[in-house]
Amino acid sequence: MGDGTADRRPGGRNARVRNQILSATAELVARHGVTGFRYEEVAELAGVHRTSVYRNWPDREKLVAAALLQYAEDLASIADTGDLRKDLVDYLVRIATGLQTPFGRALESAMQLTDDSPAVRQTVALILEERGAALRRRVATAVDRGELPKVDSVFLGEMLAGPTRLVVNRGGRTFTRADAERIVDVVLAGIRATASEREN
Amino acid sequence: MGDGTADRRPGGRNARVRNQILSATAELVARHGVTGFRYEEVAELAGVHRTSVYRNWPDREKLVAAALLQYAEDLASIADTGDLRKDLVDYLVRIATGLQTPFGRALESAMQLTDDSPAVRQTVALILEERGAALRRRVATAVDRGELPKVDSVFLGEMLAGPTRLVVNRGGRTFTRADAERIVDVVLAGIRATASEREN
Repeated sequence: MGDGTADRRPGGRNARVRNQILSATAELVARHGVTGFRYEEVAELAGVHRTSVYRNWPDREKLVAAALLQYAEDLASIADTGDLRKDLVDYLVRIATGLQTPFGRALESAMQLTDDSPAVRQTVALILEERGAALRRRVATAVDRGELPKVDSVFLGEMLAGPTRLVVNRGGRTFTRADAERIVDVVLAGIRATASEREN
Repeated sequence: MGDGTADRRPGGRNARVRNQILSATAELVARHGVTGFRYEEVAELAGVHRTSVYRNWPDREKLVAAALLQYAEDLASIADTGDLRKDLVDYLVRIATGLQTPFGRALESAMQLTDDSPAVRQTVALILEERGAALRRRVATAVDRGELPKVDSVFLGEMLAGPTRLVVNRGGRTFTRADAERIVDVVLAGIRATASEREN
């Protein structure tokens, strides 16, 4: 990226080129995996010259990492409307929608990478950490308000996101808001029931 | 595969070559995805001549499908010991173990294939169907015995397998029997609690 601040202003030519390159990268990673795309393809899909890609991201892993981070900025939030069930249902619907975008598929592909790729691994870890922190804060608020017994928010996140991801990734049927509600209802009821069993 | 029955007997040379080729295929699909491997690599990893691969599976999709099917034969069962909790915990431990084998990773890769590949899609669908049928039978028995309220066994399967797959695929920590028990306990309690809410 240029080194003058003018080059970095949102909407500037460099910012636009950068966005085009990162979107194209996410799209190609989604299609072919982290190791399965070529710089030439990125340039072609982004509609920029090949040297723009090379110059800005000489390191292929850093290119993938940047594409994933750009995507993740939208995703790490969970609202607090005061209604825990609604907020969790919205969260699952957002996860499901995100998984169906090129960025979401790119993230999936990066998460299942078996080859070692430190920059990508690190980015995925960072994204998951941010998401985990958002859920932890929302759960802590719910526990404070007496809506939930004390619960491991990582486990709660796995119980909610796991079935959601399975349905979306398997692709056999559309994931609906009713699916999200059914998952949230069973998990919240199960967490409450097993907590009271432990107390008795 | 040869057309004489002698060629097909278990332990025969053809059967051995076939197994080597299918195992190598699964390993490579696990590493590089369904579209990311070459016949030359299969032959090299299997320790056979390239023409053995081409002759037996001229169609690349059918090669992948055969590799997946061979793997799945071990996986479609759920025991009935009379103890539903134990049988489901064993089932999740088996899913987790399976996901960490080359065959399991190949199946994962095939399930998330975005390109269209009818033979592979069909095989994955068949494998999932067999697995679904096994769970459906086990759940029906549990309902008959009064261990569970009537429940959609597909949904139950998603609630159980989803978190299991998430933990294993994310790879941040080892999936243990205690993880399987915690998942089964919350899901069974949640299914029972939401069913009795519906009845009241």
